[in-house]
Formats: sequence, C-alpha cells, structure tokens
Amino acid sequence: MLEEAKKSFLKQGFMKTLGAKIIHIEKGEVKIQCNKNDGLTQQNGFFHAGVLTSLMDVACGYAALTVMPKNSDVLSVEFKTNLLRPATSEIIIATGKVIKAGKTLVFCEAKVEDEQGKLYTTMQATMISMQKNKAN
Amino acid sequence: MLEEAKKSFLKQGFMKTLGAKIIHIEKGEVKIQCNKNDGLTQQNGFFHAGVLTSLMDVACGYAALTVMPKNSDVLSVEFKTNLLRPATSEIIIATGKVIKAGKTLVFCEAKVEDEQGKLYTTMQATMISMQKNKAN
Amino acid sequence: MLEEAKKSFLKQGFMKTLGAKIIHIEKGEVKIQCNKNDGLTQQNGFFHAGVLTSLMDVACGYAALTVMPKNSDVLSVEFKTNLLRPATSEIIIATGKVIKAGKTLVFCEAKVEDEQGKLYTTMQATMISMQKNKAN
Amino acid sequence: MLEEAKKSFLKQGFMKTLGAKIIHIEKGEVKIQCNKNDGLTQQNGFFHAGVLTSLMDVACGYAALTVMPKNSDVLSVEFKTNLLRPATSEIIIATGKVIKAGKTLVFCEAKVEDEQGKLYTTMQATMISMQKNKAN
Repeated sequence: MLEEAKKSFLKQGFMKTLGAKIIHIEKGEVKIQCNKNDGLTQQNGFFHAGVLTSLMDVACGYAALTVMPKNSDVLSVEFKTNLLRPATSEIIIATGKVIKAGKTLVFCEAKVEDEQGKLYTTMQATMISMQKNKAN
Repeated sequence: MLEEAKKSFLKQGFMKTLGAKIIHIEKGEVKIQCNKNDGLTQQNGFFHAGVLTSLMDVACGYAALTVMPKNSDVLSVEFKTNLLRPATSEIIIATGKVIKAGKTLVFCEAKVEDEQGKLYTTMQATMISMQKNKAN
Repeated sequence: MLEEAKKSFLKQGFMKTLGAKIIHIEKGEVKIQCNKNDGLTQQNGFFHAGVLTSLMDVACGYAALTVMPKNSDVLSVEFKTNLLRPATSEIIIATGKVIKAGKTLVFCEAKVEDEQGKLYTTMQATMISMQKNKAN
Repeated sequence: MLEEAKKSFLKQGFMKTLGAKIIHIEKGEVKIQCNKNDGLTQQNGFFHAGVLTSLMDVACGYAALTVMPKNSDVLSVEFKTNLLRPATSEIIIATGKVIKAGKTLVFCEAKVEDEQGKLYTTMQATMISMQKNKAN
C-alpha cells in the first residue's frame, strides 16, 4: 500500500497548496515536510495551527493506509491537537504513526517538530478504512 | 474587541490562502465562509479535513477574542475535530461560539455546515488569552 | 433497543459503584443522575473529573445503543472531556445525545449539569456497534 | 512537590473507591495501579472505560503537580481518551507523563497497560496550576 498512499497524497489539492511533501514512508509511519511562506501563517507570522493540524492529519491518514487491505481508501474519523508552543521555525516535519490497527479503525499518533526535534504539537487520531468502489 | 478580531483575522496569511471570510461577528460568536476550489481538496475532491478544522479553529479563536480584555492576543491550546460525513458542498460555513469564558482560558465549540445547515464537523476547543507586548 | 440499553446499564458494576441511575431514556438520548458521597470526590471534595467523564461516557454509549440494530453491543472508541468549572453541587445529571448515527460508528455529545442547568463539563464521543455473539 | 502530590492523592475519595494506588512517582511521571473487582466493570465484565480514564486523568494530574510551583493545586482542563482494545486483565497500570510544562498549563500524556505492557488506552491531557488559598 506504500505506492497507493503516495498516489493518494498527490491527489490532495490541499497538500499542493501547503507545499507539503512526503519525505519518508514505511509501513505504519509517514513523515511530511512543509516550508514556511506568507500564505501559511497566523496573525504573528508563525505557522498556523490549521497547517500543523492538516499535516498531522495527513501523516496519520497515510500511515494508516499503509496497513489497510488492498483497495482501501482512508477517511479521518476524529483527531485532537494539542499546541505546546508557537511553531516559529521555517521548516516543520510532521510524523504520523500507527499505534493499533483494527479491522475497520486504525488508531494513530502524530507530532510536528522542527528540524532539530523541538516539539510543537501532538495528535491522537482515529482513521477508518473504506472499501473503494470498483469503478474508481 | 470586534474590530481587533477582524484586524487580527486579516493578518492571517493562511486565511487568505483558504479564501476564507468572516461573514458574521458578534460578542462570543464568529461565522466564517469558504468556497471550494481545487486547492482545498482531499483525494476524492471534497473539502479537506484540514480546511474544515482550520476554519473551526479560527472561528473559535476570534469568538474567544471578542470576550477577552483589551490588548489580548489569542492562541489555541487544543482542539478536537469529529468528522461526521464528507463535506461535499461547494460552500461551507464554520461557526465558533464561546461556551465559558474564564480569566485565562476560554472554552468554545464550533461546527461546519453547508448553506442548508447539513452538519459536517464539530469541534471542542480551548483558547488562551495572551497579553500583547506594548511595542506591538 | 430501549430495554436492551437499560438491561446493559444494570450489568455495569461500575455504575452501581457510582450510585448512578438512568432517569430518562428515549431514542437517541439518555440522562443519568448521580448523587455525591465521599467516595466520588477529588482532593477538594467536589465530584471527581473521572466520575463526570464516566457518566457522560455511559450516557453517550446507551444513547448510541438505542439507535443501533438489534443484537448490537456498544463500545467506546474515544471521547474527550472539557471541564468548565468545578462540579460543586450535590446532584449531577449527565445527558448524552446521538448527533450522527452511521452503520458502524455513532457520534454523540454529552454534558454534565447540576439540577438548575449549570454546565460543568462537555464531551464529544465516538461509539462503535459490535454484533453480539449468539451464545450470549 | 512529590510529597504534596502523594498527600493530595490520598484526599481523593474516588481513588479509594477504585482501590487505586500510586506505585511510582518522580518529577514529571506518576504510575497508578488498580486491581479489578466487580464494582469496576462494564457490561462484559472488563474494566470500565471510565475507570481507565479516571486513572489516566489522576496520573497526569499528579505528574503535572510534581513540576508546578510550591503551594499549587492542580485541576484538569481537558483530556481525551482513545480506547484501543477491551481491558481484559485483572491488573492495570496507568502511567502519566509531563510533556511540556508552561507557567500556567502543563501538557501531559498517559496510557493504561496490563502488567506485560499490553496497551489498552491512551490520553492527551491539559492540566492547570491553581494557587492554593493560604487558609488551606
């Protein structure tokens, strides 16, 4: 499912808008990098909480997809973000990991750090496996 | 604080990127509208969960700011999103409301609906009031 | 499923320990009451956050069960509690409501209030329907 | 603050009701053990989600208290529980850890495992430091 995850990621117009790239993918883990620009900021010029959360959601989603059966699509059921400090760096890296894969639901955790490993945000997330229509 | 909330919103580069607009603001409540384009989608062409969450976060943040003391800035402490169904409409409206305003923390709830009131997502969020530097 | 929900509630030893009682049940909504005693308190003598959360979890779970197919059992997938103020009253009432019922997952919201409707806590929760073993 | 944390724990009537004991405490980390009995179960005879959550909440709260200034009291702002599998063991151990300690808020994570380290639940939690009244 690694190739399917990469292909699905490229279909997300929103990831293009963020300039986000998968920089690592293996079974159960995905890392996504994003470089700051003026279109990604909150009122003080730091990365927006919505950007941080979007990257963690996607890192969890594709980490989950890598452990799902063939022909699965992945949707987010819920996620929760805690924001520990303003994300003041120019580059951020979101890491999503599968903690427990069930038949239908996959539980993941994620974090966003700078390149030196300074922790900005954490996430708990539940993903669900949907069987794709054959016509797709 | 209504004017301060509107001004702060306009400083968020990320809200420009999303094409998001405040369509209603009063003490304790903010509504934000966003129209779909190809840069806001997930892999099936619907609004991305990250967009929905970003709008709810911002609606909560500025709803909270309207009840904070003068010279406050607002930061998100944490939020949680539940995704009830894919957001298949062309237009979405996020509503954020203050549920309980404390001295430091403001607890809010938000939702995203289409124009007919079909519910897509809900949020619980905690916002914190920060005193602005005088130099700002 | 109203009768099944009531029966299942009575099987929960922990609800007996809390002295909790279902005081209202209808399709998609359950109310549970609990009266304070010294075994339910935190360090300042108020209702413990764990008690408040347990009641909301159970109110959501059985609200969800009332809308599930026959022979379902309900399990909690996840829930999140926000605590707005200390629960200083002698009696608390937890209300759980179904917001969206899917085939597998049921999304609920809950709150705990005192008898006058003073709001103490809120919850977002995801419940899952499990098919019971025939042998049960 | 280790002694204050232990003393405060002993004032929680609800922890007595659960038969919970602190089995490890150091700066930033607390472990709590609980043994199953019929008063702690859900409808299938396993540990109730409310018990698991209560133990994680308390482990986070006292882990947070150990890093707070003298004369602080700790209250829960919010927490979120994900339930990975039914807690079928006879003994459970909740571990709470401080991830980031700010001036007012302390962000913690927790988990519940059996004695062999099988993971049942996880938590993200925000705790707040309250200055105690001198009269206390």
